[in-house]
Amino acid sequence: MRNTQSASTMPIHKYRPYHEQFAVDLPDRTWPSKHIEVAPRWCAVDLRDGNQALIDPMSPERKRIMFDMLVRMGYKEIEVGFPSASQTDFDFVRSLIDEDAIPDDVTIQVLTQAREHLIRRTYESIAGAKQAIVHLYNSTSVLQREVVFREDKQGIIDIALFGARTCRALEATVPGTTIYYEYSPESYTGTELEFAVEVCNQVIAVLEPTPERKVIINLPATVEMATPNVYADSIEWMSRHLDQRENLLISLHPHNDRGTAIAAAELGYLAGADRIEGCLFGNGERTGNVDLVALGINLFTQGIDPQIDFGNIDEVKRTAEYCNQLPVPERSPWAGDLVFTAFSGSHQDAIKKGFEAMAADAAAQGRSVDELQWAVPYLPVDPKDLGRSYEAVIRVNSQSGKGGVAYLLKTDHALDLPRKLQIEFSGVVQSKTDAEGGEVTSEQIWDIFNDEYLPSSSGHPDDKWGRFELFSTRTSSDLGGRVDLTVDLRDDDGVERVEGAGNGPIAAFLGIMAERGIAITLYDYVEHAMSAGGDALAASYVELDVNGRRYWGVGIDADISTASLKAVVSAVNRGIRAAAGDLALAGVPA
Amino acid sequence: MRNTQSASTMPIHKYRPYHEQFAVDLPDRTWPSKHIEVAPRWCAVDLRDGNQALIDPMSPERKRIMFDMLVRMGYKEIEVGFPSASQTDFDFVRSLIDEDAIPDDVTIQVLTQAREHLIRRTYESIAGAKQAIVHLYNSTSVLQREVVFREDKQGIIDIALFGARTCRALEATVPGTTIYYEYSPESYTGTELEFAVEVCNQVIAVLEPTPERKVIINLPATVEMATPNVYADSIEWMSRHLDQRENLLISLHPHNDRGTAIAAAELGYLAGADRIEGCLFGNGERTGNVDLVALGINLFTQGIDPQIDFGNIDEVKRTAEYCNQLPVPERSPWAGDLVFTAFSGSHQDAIKKGFEAMAADAAAQGRSVDELQWAVPYLPVDPKDLGRSYEAVIRVNSQSGKGGVAYLLKTDHALDLPRKLQIEFSGVVQSKTDAEGGEVTSEQIWDIFNDEYLPSSSGHPDDKWGRFELFSTRTSSDLGGRVDLTVDLRDDDGVERVEGAGNGPIAAFLGIMAERGIAITLYDYVEHAMSAGGDALAASYVELDVNGRRYWGVGIDADISTASLKAVVSAVNRGIRAAAGDLALAGVPA
Repeated sequence: MRNTQSASTMPIHKYRPYHEQFAVDLPDRTWPSKHIEVAPRWCAVDLRDGNQALIDPMSPERKRIMFDMLVRMGYKEIEVGFPSASQTDFDFVRSLIDEDAIPDDVTIQVLTQAREHLIRRTYESIAGAKQAIVHLYNSTSVLQREVVFREDKQGIIDIALFGARTCRALEATVPGTTIYYEYSPESYTGTELEFAVEVCNQVIAVLEPTPERKVIINLPATVEMATPNVYADSIEWMSRHLDQRENLLISLHPHNDRGTAIAAAELGYLAGADRIEGCLFGNGERTGNVDLVALGINLFTQGIDPQIDFGNIDEVKRTAEYCNQLPVPERSPWAGDLVFTAFSGSHQDAIKKGFEAMAADAAAQGRSVDELQWAVPYLPVDPKDLGRSYEAVIRVNSQSGKGGVAYLLKTDHALDLPRKLQIEFSGVVQSKTDAEGGEVTSEQIWDIFNDEYLPSSSGHPDDKWGRFELFSTRTSSDLGGRVDLTVDLRDDDGVERVEGAGNGPIAAFLGIMAERGIAITLYDYVEHAMSAGGDALAASYVELDVNGRRYWGVGIDADISTASLKAVVSAVNRGIRAAAGDLALAGVPA
Repeated sequence: MRNTQSASTMPIHKYRPYHEQFAVDLPDRTWPSKHIEVAPRWCAVDLRDGNQALIDPMSPERKRIMFDMLVRMGYKEIEVGFPSASQTDFDFVRSLIDEDAIPDDVTIQVLTQAREHLIRRTYESIAGAKQAIVHLYNSTSVLQREVVFREDKQGIIDIALFGARTCRALEATVPGTTIYYEYSPESYTGTELEFAVEVCNQVIAVLEPTPERKVIINLPATVEMATPNVYADSIEWMSRHLDQRENLLISLHPHNDRGTAIAAAELGYLAGADRIEGCLFGNGERTGNVDLVALGINLFTQGIDPQIDFGNIDEVKRTAEYCNQLPVPERSPWAGDLVFTAFSGSHQDAIKKGFEAMAADAAAQGRSVDELQWAVPYLPVDPKDLGRSYEAVIRVNSQSGKGGVAYLLKTDHALDLPRKLQIEFSGVVQSKTDAEGGEVTSEQIWDIFNDEYLPSSSGHPDDKWGRFELFSTRTSSDLGGRVDLTVDLRDDDGVERVEGAGNGPIAAFLGIMAERGIAITLYDYVEHAMSAGGDALAASYVELDVNGRRYWGVGIDADISTASLKAVVSAVNRGIRAAAGDLALAGVPA
């Protein structure tokens, strides 16, 4: 079987292998035979390295939302900014301290370059905190020494030592704050190991760590330049050669240029590191920092407590998307919209048999399924443990060549369904057609969609689509954050005018529904205009927890606010029909 | 420095570490000391494993576009479907053969389960092909043996052997086709290694490989269950224990459940594999297959020819997005929109100095910069080698708390700029305000946007926004794929009525511009409605190569087709102004 691959025209002469530039010689490495047994110390750098890489940096409000969520999840070391480089960062650090937002067991971390006025400003930013990590860095790589700093090795060491000494001298300016230190030889992966260890050891001597006040030596893959085993070798080598190892915490800070940051963090941790810095969902410069969510849940699936709460991954995702204004990709490990789907029949069959076997085992042992070891093919984790659910998606083809359900709704009806609603609706279509792998016309799909999500009432008293129906809506805003809502609402047979208030029309309407015994939590909300013409309509999609189960609802109206209320009614009616056993799809546990 | 991390409530009792379930004992492993020196044989499975995981599977037209692109890029082994499981796949394989779409040096691969009628159907699908790889699989994992097949080990071996023997027997039905074999012990990572090698060795004995007709043994991480070094150990172990190793090609097929598929592929390749199966940008079930783009370009950055052409990564990305109807994430390695951006001042400064040093070196040596070794901090590859460009993004904050430029345009003006236009416009704002880190009002941003992208002509003859201006447009379509376009166009001072034709109004208009000496290539096109009200407008964004440099243009109109033509005019006028030295941003080399 001949290999017919042939040379490309890519200019490979411009690049040299990493191992020809940097020797990492460790034939007696021990890390490949080790296993991870306990969670590392985590440091979340979303508010610094993550924020620094956003087109639209977080506003103070978003920063605070991110900080509070990181604290809730269980992160105890949080890099909150680069206060000497940015007034916004300075103000945010001050606000955390002045508003007493930092729990006693959480330590904030602030980044600074090794220059006196910057270090002085850094200390001003943390004055009054109970404790803080001052994170000092300077670049040590061959390339940066040559083209950026134009310094020899001693010059680079002098920069680091000046920074360390200045830090020590300025400790006296923040008498009420316990100061810990982190030192990073920035661009470490582009630095000769012998030089990296020399810089670090000289800095360590100045910082005088003790067992009670360890110094963090952070070894960043500022740029990921080689396969992750090479990074791990370098970490084991450094761990053997750093002075006062017992008084140090070795920290990893992998970037993801080659797409192997998660592996680099895991192998580097096996190689002797104590701590990992990263961002939720891998936000950060270029390809991002290492993904803290993937790292944490990877541990969880091995029965190791990540010491972080990932039990509601959708909320973490939504919050991160709001703060970063960047979507979490559909296939992001453990969190993407498509991660717990199965499309192929053989996968679905195996998953079904796995669930059945677990149920049978539990029954035989007289225990709950949740007490058993998780064992379902193609699902390496119980989605429920992350607040998610498994979705068997049986695709329904339309006429050959015309694409599937979501495509047809978009093309023929200008409805651009959110990914998770696409998945839900595929199940609805499947249940109503019994056409496994079969074909459905665009008209059939539209009929099913209408019947499932949109009010199909003819107005005739005997032809009601669901328990609730909206007849009119009126909102007024005081421009101060309060919206008053008045609706003419049919509830079963009676129509009445009801009023509510909230910070928006949806919130006001949820209040009205709550008064009627419908407990609702809003999980997701998406809207779009349906065309650019004069007859423009808006489509609104909501994912609600209705009395304990999750449903999507859809509303279409010329007024976007009315469309969103119709979508709520759609989801609520579906939930009520499901409870009455009348729905194609039973919803998923919320 | 006390570690204050504490136990979470995650139900870790449900999970056991991989190494307690599967022993991979290889203390004398050799792979960690090896280096990759040559590209593996690639097999692209976008049309099978990738397509299988799409909510809307590819139409035949999309499949063909994907196939043709994979061929153009240089892939020589392409899994084109599971023809016995799907009529659509069967028809597609037939169409490739019947339409003579498969170059002589390309081998198609088709997947089949080990059942007679499925294998028979598989051979029917490939009849007439010059050569094909028949890819036989059955599941071998402990879990699937127990809960899905309810077979002991011998039962599983019997399934595999029956499949292999049936394949051999049916070779006679396709006398004109050279048949190669691939065997996959599916769910290999959940299988005891001793059993996996036993199944494979028995199958190998039936398939009777020779040096000229090697058998591919594919060892899939159907579910990624452990750190990637464990997968590599298992590959080295298998490579030592498989019979007739010299007549085999060991193939890797890593999935990305833990986010370490790229690392698993690289380390597994170091461990002795010959071949890697994956998908462009990591499409595939759940978290996806391993990303062929990342793997290939990772090799390239080490000076190793990937034997695949990645010189126009944007075209590959656009085509994959069209075929898969899934976006490539912003931070996807080597290809995401944000991968070649630098936001921090220190990064931008270092990059600038790196470019300057390379230019100085080239000048000193009397050579072109492209002959030198690439050496720019924070840019591990020359973006130009992938058809991309480096973007220094200096963010402009608006009033504290109100978000940045893109946010304000969206909130205040209903313009949802594509990511790459956001980056371009950030530079425009920066150049016009000289306010590094400073603040700009929403009004200022809107004025700058108007001035840069939108026609600001007052109609007065002395107040012209650019060389071209549109006064009216009229299109007519024959519904047969041809659109005739008539426009009243100002070109400098003269307005005339001109006509063109194409498969759409933009194509027709590009023809009109070409007649005026403006060479244009369309790179990207995005549009959206701006509101749901009765005054609905559409915004259209185009990225064009205008006479060799790239520019974005923006058009706003009640008619979407007119908006897109206005956007073309916007980009062209910007290009012309730039050529006249009159533009804030000089565009990037196309």
